[in-house]
Amino acid sequence: MAAEVATSTHRRGLAAERTSVLRLHVLDHGTLSLDQSIMLFGPTLATIDDPQRAATWLSIPSYSVLIECSEHRILFDTGSHPDSGDRWPDALKPLEVLSAEPECFLPNRLEQLRLRPEDIDIVVASHLHMDHSGCLEFFRDARVVVHRDELRSALEHYARVDGSPAYVKRDVEMWIRNGLKWSVVDRADPDFTLVPGVRVLNFGAGHVEGLLALLVELPGAGNILLASDVCYAKANLGPPPVLPGTTSIFDSLGMVHSARRLTRTAEETGAEIWFGHDPEQYQQLTKAPDGFYE
Amino acid sequence: MAAEVATSTHRRGLAAERTSVLRLHVLDHGTLSLDQSIMLFGPTLATIDDPQRAATWLSIPSYSVLIECSEHRILFDTGSHPDSGDRWPDALKPLEVLSAEPECFLPNRLEQLRLRPEDIDIVVASHLHMDHSGCLEFFRDARVVVHRDELRSALEHYARVDGSPAYVKRDVEMWIRNGLKWSVVDRADPDFTLVPGVRVLNFGAGHVEGLLALLVELPGAGNILLASDVCYAKANLGPPPVLPGTTSIFDSLGMVHSARRLTRTAEETGAEIWFGHDPEQYQQLTKAPDGFYE
Repeated sequence: MAAEVATSTHRRGLAAERTSVLRLHVLDHGTLSLDQSIMLFGPTLATIDDPQRAATWLSIPSYSVLIECSEHRILFDTGSHPDSGDRWPDALKPLEVLSAEPECFLPNRLEQLRLRPEDIDIVVASHLHMDHSGCLEFFRDARVVVHRDELRSALEHYARVDGSPAYVKRDVEMWIRNGLKWSVVDRADPDFTLVPGVRVLNFGAGHVEGLLALLVELPGAGNILLASDVCYAKANLGPPPVLPGTTSIFDSLGMVHSARRLTRTAEETGAEIWFGHDPEQYQQLTKAPDGFYE
Repeated sequence: MAAEVATSTHRRGLAAERTSVLRLHVLDHGTLSLDQSIMLFGPTLATIDDPQRAATWLSIPSYSVLIECSEHRILFDTGSHPDSGDRWPDALKPLEVLSAEPECFLPNRLEQLRLRPEDIDIVVASHLHMDHSGCLEFFRDARVVVHRDELRSALEHYARVDGSPAYVKRDVEMWIRNGLKWSVVDRADPDFTLVPGVRVLNFGAGHVEGLLALLVELPGAGNILLASDVCYAKANLGPPPVLPGTTSIFDSLGMVHSARRLTRTAEETGAEIWFGHDPEQYQQLTKAPDGFYE
């Protein structure tokens, strides 16, 4: 009886219906390396005792998640585009270095699971930075769920010569050219159930102008909260939240609020938070095609 | 004729009455040294070509401004307290190092001008960080103008064991004990003329929860916009604005907005912006008691 109460408490916040989720695959997209202060500002600062302190060069994972449901296949993010070496602007390349074998890019990862892009019904784009949305263009048949403010932000960066390098112009161009079927989440929209067992959490402004996270109810493994860059890593979560470097922030107040909401939501749903780029956590995850979560 | 039009255009935004400002003194309070990325995030990041890049240890000025008017003496900020070496929390000391000869502290600077704290009628506290408000406690007779959100923020940091080290507990304690005569500016308050020729600009949230700047109309030297930490230095101003490190930010959106407003206000009033901690600009200023602006 106690166990039943606990289960029901842990799962409030998800759809009342039984989950339709069958299994979840972690799709590895290689690593990014960068100055640690971009991820977490503060701990690596110089002090009077070490005024020329050396920077810490950090490798972080890049990944997306495939969720197989009884009637749908859902992707959460898509990693970087296979041509990122050419597509990424010169201003970005020395600061964030992508290392990825050919098998790491999403079309090849799907092929390892005997899937093609047209087998995906829904793509949820947490946000539109180059390392999360680089392969969106391949999903011409899918419903692509995105935050409206983020879509408009990416389009403005695309249209301007002084746009942020984190929105890759050629990526955006291909989304437009391929006529993606955007399904937008508005700023004021509440969270919603995408399919039974998969809930879209509208985190809004913080890291970027509009971020979406996903709460997935697995039949055996329990609830997993796919946080993407709502929070890069456990070190950012706190409490109190520790912000990343300024270049990773659109709205600092929103980012602090988002980290606190993430903690609260995980507590209330008994979910495990999967951070966007946490090296230690990622090492522990089972990656496709070696295995999956169910 | 053309010159007259230009002058009138430059001075719109100030009181219509003739300025009451007679002269302005720059009071030097020594230097702070710290990791440059706290002031300006981005340019000192490590890259793949220099992944262990050494930090840049930077010295920046700390100063306040005395404005002598026909019927008032006004102080804009008060520097660090003479006992900062004891008062500042251990967490702060290795990160921000104060170097100041005894003559640098405000009571001594005033004495060089044959003034005592009781000769000051109004103190405008741009905000309540330790390097701007350390000597507030000496001004028991003055009207102390401060942003209400900033005052409340400082009081919360004072009351909490996990408060920010930038609000020094002993400083705050002495403000309370000495019964300072706070005169608060609300979030929604418009800018206002403090005395003819001295205008308080309500910049609100950005670097901290509530920041005040001052626009001073000198009879000969023209308009000076005392920006304090609305913008640390010219390098932060842009356009586009470049943010300081995350630990220097309360509201990143507010800070970007504030930098843009600063540029616009300076353009519309013909004012020279005096940044809060710009080493290059500060080198060019005439400091008391060597001289003053009039």
